[in-house]
Amino acid sequence: MAKNTNIRISLPAVCFVWQIAMIILFGVFIRYDEESDTHWIEHRRKKNISTNLENDFYYRYPSFQDVHVMIFVGFGFLMTFLKRYSFGGVGFNFLIAAFGIQWALLMQGWFHHLDEHDWKIKIGVENLINADFCVASCLIAYGACLGKVSPVQLMVLTLFGVTLFAVEEYIILELLHAKDAGGSMVIHTFGAYYGLTISWVLYRPLLSQSKHLQGSVYHSDVFAMIGTLFLWMYWPSFNSAIADHGDGQHRAVINTYLALASSVLTTFAISSISQNNGKLDMVHIQNATLAGGVAMGTASEFMITPYGSLIVGFCSGIVSTFGYLFLTPFMEKTLKIQDTCGIHNLHAMPGVIGGIVGAITAASASESVYGQEGLINTFDFKDAVANRTVNIQGGYQAAALFVAIAFGLVGGALVGGILKLPIWGDPADVNCFDDDIFIVLSFCINNVSTIKKWKKI
Amino acid sequence: MAKNTNIRISLPAVCFVWQIAMIILFGVFIRYDEESDTHWIEHRRKKNISTNLENDFYYRYPSFQDVHVMIFVGFGFLMTFLKRYSFGGVGFNFLIAAFGIQWALLMQGWFHHLDEHDWKIKIGVENLINADFCVASCLIAYGACLGKVSPVQLMVLTLFGVTLFAVEEYIILELLHAKDAGGSMVIHTFGAYYGLTISWVLYRPLLSQSKHLQGSVYHSDVFAMIGTLFLWMYWPSFNSAIADHGDGQHRAVINTYLALASSVLTTFAISSISQNNGKLDMVHIQNATLAGGVAMGTASEFMITPYGSLIVGFCSGIVSTFGYLFLTPFMEKTLKIQDTCGIHNLHAMPGVIGGIVGAITAASASESVYGQEGLINTFDFKDAVANRTVNIQGGYQAAALFVAIAFGLVGGALVGGILKLPIWGDPADVNCFDDDIFIVLSFCINNVSTIKKWKKI
Amino acid sequence: MAKNTNIRISLPAVCFVWQIAMIILFGVFIRYDEESDTHWIEHRRKKNISTNLENDFYYRYPSFQDVHVMIFVGFGFLMTFLKRYSFGGVGFNFLIAAFGIQWALLMQGWFHHLDEHDWKIKIGVENLINADFCVASCLIAYGACLGKVSPVQLMVLTLFGVTLFAVEEYIILELLHAKDAGGSMVIHTFGAYYGLTISWVLYRPLLSQSKHLQGSVYHSDVFAMIGTLFLWMYWPSFNSAIADHGDGQHRAVINTYLALASSVLTTFAISSISQNNGKLDMVHIQNATLAGGVAMGTASEFMITPYGSLIVGFCSGIVSTFGYLFLTPFMEKTLKIQDTCGIHNLHAMPGVIGGIVGAITAASASESVYGQEGLINTFDFKDAVANRTVNIQGGYQAAALFVAIAFGLVGGALVGGILKLPIWGDPADVNCFDDDIFIVLSFCINNVSTIKKWKKI
Repeated sequence: MAKNTNIRISLPAVCFVWQIAMIILFGVFIRYDEESDTHWIEHRRKKNISTNLENDFYYRYPSFQDVHVMIFVGFGFLMTFLKRYSFGGVGFNFLIAAFGIQWALLMQGWFHHLDEHDWKIKIGVENLINADFCVASCLIAYGACLGKVSPVQLMVLTLFGVTLFAVEEYIILELLHAKDAGGSMVIHTFGAYYGLTISWVLYRPLLSQSKHLQGSVYHSDVFAMIGTLFLWMYWPSFNSAIADHGDGQHRAVINTYLALASSVLTTFAISSISQNNGKLDMVHIQNATLAGGVAMGTASEFMITPYGSLIVGFCSGIVSTFGYLFLTPFMEKTLKIQDTCGIHNLHAMPGVIGGIVGAITAASASESVYGQEGLINTFDFKDAVANRTVNIQGGYQAAALFVAIAFGLVGGALVGGILKLPIWGDPADVNCFDDDIFIVLSFCINNVSTIKKWKKI
Repeated sequence: MAKNTNIRISLPAVCFVWQIAMIILFGVFIRYDEESDTHWIEHRRKKNISTNLENDFYYRYPSFQDVHVMIFVGFGFLMTFLKRYSFGGVGFNFLIAAFGIQWALLMQGWFHHLDEHDWKIKIGVENLINADFCVASCLIAYGACLGKVSPVQLMVLTLFGVTLFAVEEYIILELLHAKDAGGSMVIHTFGAYYGLTISWVLYRPLLSQSKHLQGSVYHSDVFAMIGTLFLWMYWPSFNSAIADHGDGQHRAVINTYLALASSVLTTFAISSISQNNGKLDMVHIQNATLAGGVAMGTASEFMITPYGSLIVGFCSGIVSTFGYLFLTPFMEKTLKIQDTCGIHNLHAMPGVIGGIVGAITAASASESVYGQEGLINTFDFKDAVANRTVNIQGGYQAAALFVAIAFGLVGGALVGGILKLPIWGDPADVNCFDDDIFIVLSFCINNVSTIKKWKKI
Repeated sequence: MAKNTNIRISLPAVCFVWQIAMIILFGVFIRYDEESDTHWIEHRRKKNISTNLENDFYYRYPSFQDVHVMIFVGFGFLMTFLKRYSFGGVGFNFLIAAFGIQWALLMQGWFHHLDEHDWKIKIGVENLINADFCVASCLIAYGACLGKVSPVQLMVLTLFGVTLFAVEEYIILELLHAKDAGGSMVIHTFGAYYGLTISWVLYRPLLSQSKHLQGSVYHSDVFAMIGTLFLWMYWPSFNSAIADHGDGQHRAVINTYLALASSVLTTFAISSISQNNGKLDMVHIQNATLAGGVAMGTASEFMITPYGSLIVGFCSGIVSTFGYLFLTPFMEKTLKIQDTCGIHNLHAMPGVIGGIVGAITAASASESVYGQEGLINTFDFKDAVANRTVNIQGGYQAAALFVAIAFGLVGGALVGGILKLPIWGDPADVNCFDDDIFIVLSFCINNVSTIKKWKKI
């Protein structure tokens, strides 16, 4: 059955209405914070800050740029592996991330940074990082739906995804006072279950009609390696970007670097053992090698020790690759979940591992290892939670994991229901995994007349 | 008519002569500045600088590297979209940028950094950033000529482009004392009109003979997205790289980040509305999404407010996409300007918008918003211009815009005339957009014998 | 003769055994250093460090990330140029780098950072950079063997390569007290001769059977430009990453930036002069443009002056391009060394040039140029070498170059002999340069059944 994929009204309408709404809401709510405002010089004098370098910009900006690259090039190019959906992968990723970061600045601002005096949200570089983080969860969810949805559906997915994320994050970080610097729970677990549930609601029984487009060609797989490598290389920045100044950021980088290195080796091992002649499967190399970074998200700031990080990467690489081998086919056949990029293997399972590792590491923290001040600083045992013990902290960490899963499942079911409405221009089964229905190629001059002739030569 | 594209004498001659000239001129004029010289430790003691971190290197280096990526990968890969000119795009970009940064260090040094005592130019990381900026204007100009000129012509274009840039920049920044941290006027407006005028002088009435090469293929369009995304992601670094330490850099990043996000949404909207079925045109996605960054260049340091930045991005995305739809074909047919990459839409118009926004924002600045010290710091109302008011500053900003346009037009006409001489090896109309006439593919071993056989399989 | 390339047992076995060994050895030896440990706050108080910014993390992290990109994307994509070995290039590079950095942390730790009190190695961000550096030498060696070895052989090559590197580095930096911030000798010269000797031992007389696969196709050459450009752009970070804080890092960046720019122009010149019609050879553009960075490795911290840097780049670009034109074919025919990527031209010769330049520059250093303190700081004339003169330093620099070459030759011969054993799954001559024997393409869903059908369409 042919579906109507004409989005000539709906996509521009959504883009314009939402962008205008952003402008109005930013006008009402968003202002520069004291470190990005021209009054910084007075602020410095008042707080006796000796140098401009103490501006948070210099602590955070290099990490911010790395995270930014992960969001747009990392996630974008990781989704270029399909032979006829490379543009769809990187292009729609670009669209929804650019929208999502604006909405995230507002949603996260309302929950975390609303000034009680003037009801404004004051933003600085840390807010930009957090907005990128928030959007990451929606891009993960996109991975499950890649090739099967229209850009309008993705905009809706992102609008609700960011909204749900902000609430979930508020509960986990503020109410439960759980720690999650790299977002194993908040970003990866939530995002993955959100996407998987949406994909389950949108199940397409006849998707095999576009089976011939579900694979890669040689060069599309090389493009995907660009995404893989930029995610892999910059993951230490992801997990340390909003960690504590000083030893916190430093330690998060070391732990993540090691976990990632370890998961590369176990991924290659399991991938090789699973094929005739020990051939490596590019889909494993592209994805499961990143599992160590996901699994190190929660505990990256903790004193998990270097060998502890290696163990986390070791296990998550194995689990993730086995997921691609056995769980993805099982989920499609039995659970009716079509997971294009295998986000269950790359984000859901390693994210849960990360949450569990975080809970255990927190519960087993001690003053003898952390030092008295170190323990307080690392877990922020101050103010309302000044008397919390590490055991209780471990319990709250575990609770946070369930909150993330629950938000993903319930939120995904709701949003999946909305996306099932036949008004969003989603493609017919036979047109899935072909971005031709949404995109035309570039021509600088006279771009209309010769399109037909030269398309996809 | 077959043209002689043999550059076996001219290209090596130009490269050698100019590189040797650079060595001699550097020998005479260029030295390390006090922050990159081994006497830094004595300088520190004398100036009572407490830590090595106060070396400007730590303020600027991360931004410098981001700008460097924009120049070589950003501009380079943005020009890979043509099906048979991907090497020509990225390779010649590499050549002229590498030459241009050397010449820029000299030209900018003579105008801005010549030490009055010893007649030496003292360079540090900020000079490297400025050299990259200067070269950007020539790479923009290359965009209009892509596929239609020889590498020797590009070297000439760059030699004169850098020279003109340095004079124009001196007039705008030093004489008019206009502010232009991200170079909307100095870099983008000048570079675009410089390139467009050259393209007008070099008009090829029979260019349609190579029409079949003027489009993209699927993978060349994906390569171009690498350029787009690295430009888009690092543009906040571009606009903040030489902004004031502290709040200046911080604010420039926030403003640019927001303007870019906003222009993505309006670009997608206009692109979709312009095609049957709402399909997106890759050339818009690759280019117009960047218009927000260009348009935020001048005002990035100012207190334009976050929603102001969104509005700037909103408008420039629309204007730029409309340019690709209507203005580029119009300019080619009526004005005889063949603009391969559409730099009029991506750089000229958003650059002019940026200049106007800068003038308005400067003229409407106030002590109540900026604070007394903030106003002085932001606009550098010191020394000779200590008594300048914001209204007068606005006037000078507007004047600067006209200077940039005038330099582009007049300089482009002159250099275009030089490039029209039949000695530079430019290709015949039928050979345009095919880098085959200038480049052979890689073979590691025995690279000559089998070239014919395997070329461009 | 068909060879057995089944690595279904050997590759997983090597990965698992070595990764488990890493975990055990890290458990015994590796701990956080005082700047990445939660006791940092106490350390700060004890040492009277006023701000978190004095944590070495903020001096080194941006450079570390740039180096990290060079190792994984730079070296990886530089090796994608072969038409049928793009995955093999980038994928195996990924595997061996991820293993190598772990082993390097141990090896370098034992030699340089072993705490005498508790026999632990304390790691921080500088160790991560050094591990990346160490791995670079093995990736260089891989370049000579590209397409002719199995991943198991590469793991063995890396295990021994890292081991040899750590010893060689110890002799050069600690015993000889030579300076080599960017590793012209320690990394490039050693790595290149190590790889070339291995390639000599593994000489394949019938390699011409796979001659039809030894070239590039259009898009694989564009992929290789990604590698080239990220190496080129970030090389200033490579040469400055572990230089002295302050002026040392600052000066290393300027010197490297200039040398690289200069070698681009001479590479284009020589490449153009060598072909009919002055066409450029992509293999030169991809490789010889980087020679300036290699040759500036040793002297990057010294007061070589900006024009001195240009001269170094000028010469190394010429030498490297001539190497590709004449030396690589000569070496294959006469010396029986098959050097797939031409590492002799990109790393060996420029590395030797770098070592010589370093020796001369050191020997000609003077207090009048460096200042008294500057001279001591730059060459670390402290403790055991407090009385060393610059002339003697120059002699030790020259000695270091011979150590690097000797380690490369002897180590390569030994390891080549090990790799010649017929147990590692190396491909037959006819299967060289085709990664099809080790890798299958990506399929997200049902990835086994349709592989045959869609492979490499």
